[in-house]
Amino acid sequence: MAGRAAYLAVDWGTTNRRAYAVAADGAVVDSLQDDRGVLAMTRDDYPASITALRERLGAYPVIASGMVGSSRGWREAPYIAAPATLEHLADASLEAAPGVWIVPGVALRHGKRPDVMRGEETQVLGAIRAGAAPPTALFCQPGTHNKWIDTAEGAITAFTTVMTGEIFALLRSHGVLAEMLDGAVTDGAAFRRGLRRGIAAQNVLATLFEVRAGVLLDRLAPGDAAAYASGILIGADVATREDLAQRPVHLLGGGALGDLYAVAIREAGGTPVAVPEGSTTAGLHAIWSLRT
Amino acid sequence: MAGRAAYLAVDWGTTNRRAYAVAADGAVVDSLQDDRGVLAMTRDDYPASITALRERLGAYPVIASGMVGSSRGWREAPYIAAPATLEHLADASLEAAPGVWIVPGVALRHGKRPDVMRGEETQVLGAIRAGAAPPTALFCQPGTHNKWIDTAEGAITAFTTVMTGEIFALLRSHGVLAEMLDGAVTDGAAFRRGLRRGIAAQNVLATLFEVRAGVLLDRLAPGDAAAYASGILIGADVATREDLAQRPVHLLGGGALGDLYAVAIREAGGTPVAVPEGSTTAGLHAIWSLRT
Repeated sequence: MAGRAAYLAVDWGTTNRRAYAVAADGAVVDSLQDDRGVLAMTRDDYPASITALRERLGAYPVIASGMVGSSRGWREAPYIAAPATLEHLADASLEAAPGVWIVPGVALRHGKRPDVMRGEETQVLGAIRAGAAPPTALFCQPGTHNKWIDTAEGAITAFTTVMTGEIFALLRSHGVLAEMLDGAVTDGAAFRRGLRRGIAAQNVLATLFEVRAGVLLDRLAPGDAAAYASGILIGADVATREDLAQRPVHLLGGGALGDLYAVAIREAGGTPVAVPEGSTTAGLHAIWSLRT
Repeated sequence: MAGRAAYLAVDWGTTNRRAYAVAADGAVVDSLQDDRGVLAMTRDDYPASITALRERLGAYPVIASGMVGSSRGWREAPYIAAPATLEHLADASLEAAPGVWIVPGVALRHGKRPDVMRGEETQVLGAIRAGAAPPTALFCQPGTHNKWIDTAEGAITAFTTVMTGEIFALLRSHGVLAEMLDGAVTDGAAFRRGLRRGIAAQNVLATLFEVRAGVLLDRLAPGDAAAYASGILIGADVATREDLAQRPVHLLGGGALGDLYAVAIREAGGTPVAVPEGSTTAGLHAIWSLRT
């Protein structure tokens, strides 16, 4: 199989790494996924890690996106400023070692508020290139940090990072709510009640204390507290977009968290559209093709 | 000195405990402060702890407020519903042992949103009883959880708990911002810039990510990041009150955090008024006097 490949595409994140052997026409012919994310590596580990990838998937050129290009990664591929297209990403890719390129991240550098992304740009523009979303669209990428991303004519023009997932994880493992948040987080009455409170929240850090007060006052079942808290946080997250009702929201990254965001977007008056898998490899393929 | 005392008043919190020997006219004749807060105690420790307090300050009746009356404390003194006056608190005090009374907390039990307090009620109503604030007022009590408390004619009528301090502590010790938040938090240009961003924030969890992006893009000096983040959180906190400009804000609890809230309240268009020390003992004295 790997004999048909032309290059290796790597989605190299903080915790995980996905690598693909890709044919010249963009077809994925082999792949692997492991836990060799940036946090598991020292700077000196990367050359041997590339060698091992090539032994496993074939001795091809490599193009990688994600946290591998951050100051914590292998070599820093400086952020390019929005508006950013696939062409800009290809032009600014950094050759970290012979035959190994790292795609830069995108920054809001000079506007009212600063923001950064690294990895998401490849996925969003890949979705557009693959025809899975229109060139002018709104994207939502749930995760540890959710990102709302606006594109116009195939360029990333604006985005906002919301620390929703990280704060939920911190609250669940530390602090005064932790002992109450060991229940399951699933879509249901408690999650939807939390959503409505979060969407209406003036300050999500005030609304969150209702979890504790609700349990203490027997207004919230302890087993519902985690779903309710998640609802508050995700509700407040979707409420940061005041234009949800004006256009579809292209939801990247599926799984249980994506499903919860879909419910939240609907609750806030929006229309979620799930983007199929494959956007990151489509983006990496476009960047690789533009470079060669 | 202790010979003049009539009873012992205890402000018994989560982490610390302050105990006072008080004369019949309310004058404090002796006191101690230690780290025998609720978290340092098991339920069985309380009787011996009271005996030790009496050996130290005199063998008098005891009245205590704060977390000692919570489900994690000695015995649960059930919350009374707002509107709550000193008379209601006195009536509902629980005799936990012979000659030892625990003041209940106050709850918003039946309204749109639940909330609870335990200890703050005694301080707020004590401030009013002592003449340090008018009977109808707005109070702000910064701490791990900041509380905004409305009173009307000497009764607590409404309040909101905001998890500002806890979230700042979690971010400082865990998570992706932690490594950036080791600087000092003082009033200065970075804190005030954070305040303005926090006051304008649609969702404080989006605005907080500007700390990381600002440092990565060289728009925020790493040494300023903690003050900027604190400004965002406290700014969003004061912005939860839309009526700040309509009446003074009586600020309870001084120190550095109180000073930062005073700056924030002014930045949001309000007028902070510092309430002098002594409100909790004034409240406990009023409750003790009403009981006897």
